[in-house]
Amino acid sequence: MDEFTLIDHFFKAIPLRRQDVLLGIGDDAASVQVPPGYELLVSTDTLVSGIHFLPDWNPYDIAFRSLMVNISDMAAMAAEPCWVTLALTLPELNQSWLEPFAKGLGDGLQQYHIDLIGGDITQGPLAINLTILGLAPKGRLIKREGAKPGDVILVSGPLGAAALAIQLLSDKTVPVKDREELMAKLLAPKPRTDLIHLLRTQATAAIDISDGLSADLNHLCVAGRVGACLTKEAIPVYPLLNKYLKDKAVDLALTGGDDYELCFTLPAKQLDSFMQAASLANSPCYPIGFIEKDKGLRIKSANNICETLIPTGYTHF
Amino acid sequence: MDEFTLIDHFFKAIPLRRQDVLLGIGDDAASVQVPPGYELLVSTDTLVSGIHFLPDWNPYDIAFRSLMVNISDMAAMAAEPCWVTLALTLPELNQSWLEPFAKGLGDGLQQYHIDLIGGDITQGPLAINLTILGLAPKGRLIKREGAKPGDVILVSGPLGAAALAIQLLSDKTVPVKDREELMAKLLAPKPRTDLIHLLRTQATAAIDISDGLSADLNHLCVAGRVGACLTKEAIPVYPLLNKYLKDKAVDLALTGGDDYELCFTLPAKQLDSFMQAASLANSPCYPIGFIEKDKGLRIKSANNICETLIPTGYTHF
Repeated sequence: MDEFTLIDHFFKAIPLRRQDVLLGIGDDAASVQVPPGYELLVSTDTLVSGIHFLPDWNPYDIAFRSLMVNISDMAAMAAEPCWVTLALTLPELNQSWLEPFAKGLGDGLQQYHIDLIGGDITQGPLAINLTILGLAPKGRLIKREGAKPGDVILVSGPLGAAALAIQLLSDKTVPVKDREELMAKLLAPKPRTDLIHLLRTQATAAIDISDGLSADLNHLCVAGRVGACLTKEAIPVYPLLNKYLKDKAVDLALTGGDDYELCFTLPAKQLDSFMQAASLANSPCYPIGFIEKDKGLRIKSANNICETLIPTGYTHF
Repeated sequence: MDEFTLIDHFFKAIPLRRQDVLLGIGDDAASVQVPPGYELLVSTDTLVSGIHFLPDWNPYDIAFRSLMVNISDMAAMAAEPCWVTLALTLPELNQSWLEPFAKGLGDGLQQYHIDLIGGDITQGPLAINLTILGLAPKGRLIKREGAKPGDVILVSGPLGAAALAIQLLSDKTVPVKDREELMAKLLAPKPRTDLIHLLRTQATAAIDISDGLSADLNHLCVAGRVGACLTKEAIPVYPLLNKYLKDKAVDLALTGGDDYELCFTLPAKQLDSFMQAASLANSPCYPIGFIEKDKGLRIKSANNICETLIPTGYTHF
């Protein structure tokens, strides 16, 4: 199969389910309809073999995870993910690689009601670029900036599982059950689109935790020209961290990337009603500290000692 | 400089000039406003080092050319290019490489009144991915499909310069003046946004010539379930081809990629008025043949002998 047959066979074959796609794969560009009263959100991410995933991973997982990473950027803006384009760089046209890759992509798209509208296949070192487009009612985005002193800081779930998965990747002493649980967290993160509506009505700022909580919270604070103080005991740690790395559990929860939970802020007086609504929606969230006027990050232990927290997380270079 | 400082310094510094950008670089996603009554067009292209450009090219040229290639996809749809995202994969954070790269990108964006709204920088083998977004009045796109038997086929300019540039790249016998002229065609193709309005009102189908005239015309014919017959003598050949490769000039014009002229079709009865309008707009176009009901491509020489034309052009694999 040549490049064009292959695109038709594997990617054009992924069904279009949205009514707002006017022109899909196969022309010089795709076309979609943005409804009046909405803003168009755009985000792009490249995942490189050997850096963001390992070349021997199942192509299904590589595709699925790449999509989830991109969807998370939309969730972080409280925007509905709608459409993606795929720019795939491949060393060779390998059908047995492409088949599971397209399946993983197609399954992810279906789960989140997103359409693949276009793309590009190029020869070169394996890398996957996705550009995701989404919608939000005009003026209703939640940005990184916007957190105010006194706001509560929350995270949407326990942290550190993906980082632990990477640490234990080649540790054969870990029981299969635990290993599978952790690998599922690394390979198939669940972007928190379930929180979009709650965030849109209540959050003052939001970011997704891709580089690590402390690094991403720092981005949020820098954008808002504020600081933050966290309560160490309040940080939700993924349970298996306490089993395998108890001493470093909180550290890993603070610095480990790839969790794709959300970190966001709320006015303190809304906390109770938010927690109730989140719990009702089966999306429990965890208050972990407060925004402060003083810039920089701090962390408070049970003994009330407040220490400076150096934002540490994934850096690309 | 770390990744984030560098993005601010080189890319966030490129001025936003459009009123419709609601949120630019620096958040989890960018946001733009699509006006009512318009469709949103999306196209993505990756350019890989060693395949689409050489690593020792001036980074200014690499950026400028990458942008032009993307803009051309919008011109081919008769859509106005508006916004781009950049996903840059770099082996290392090299400021002396990034500075001219950002300058080339910035200059190209300014020339075409496009804003850079977001991006991603990743470590890995050098590659540039751009996703371009554009606008067209609803239902007024020109697609690849749509050509009807009897339609005239036109191209927007002489062909083969970029292919000749590649052939003569290392030929030291070529005078500097000619070499510079050819390299300019290769490095700084001019996407034909000047034709957008004319195409929108008159063309039945359009495609940009990125892979080569015969290959791209074949895409247009396959999409429209039609065929085509070209007149060999009518194909506009870039003048220097006759100087350096006279015997292969038409072949190179038919098969050489990277010209980024447009190939499009019109109802025959509109040809005269179109040619007049195009000439008035200082955008002369060249009728090169007709769409026919019989599928496949054919080419007719001066002696009226009609031969099958095998579509040949750039393939990625």
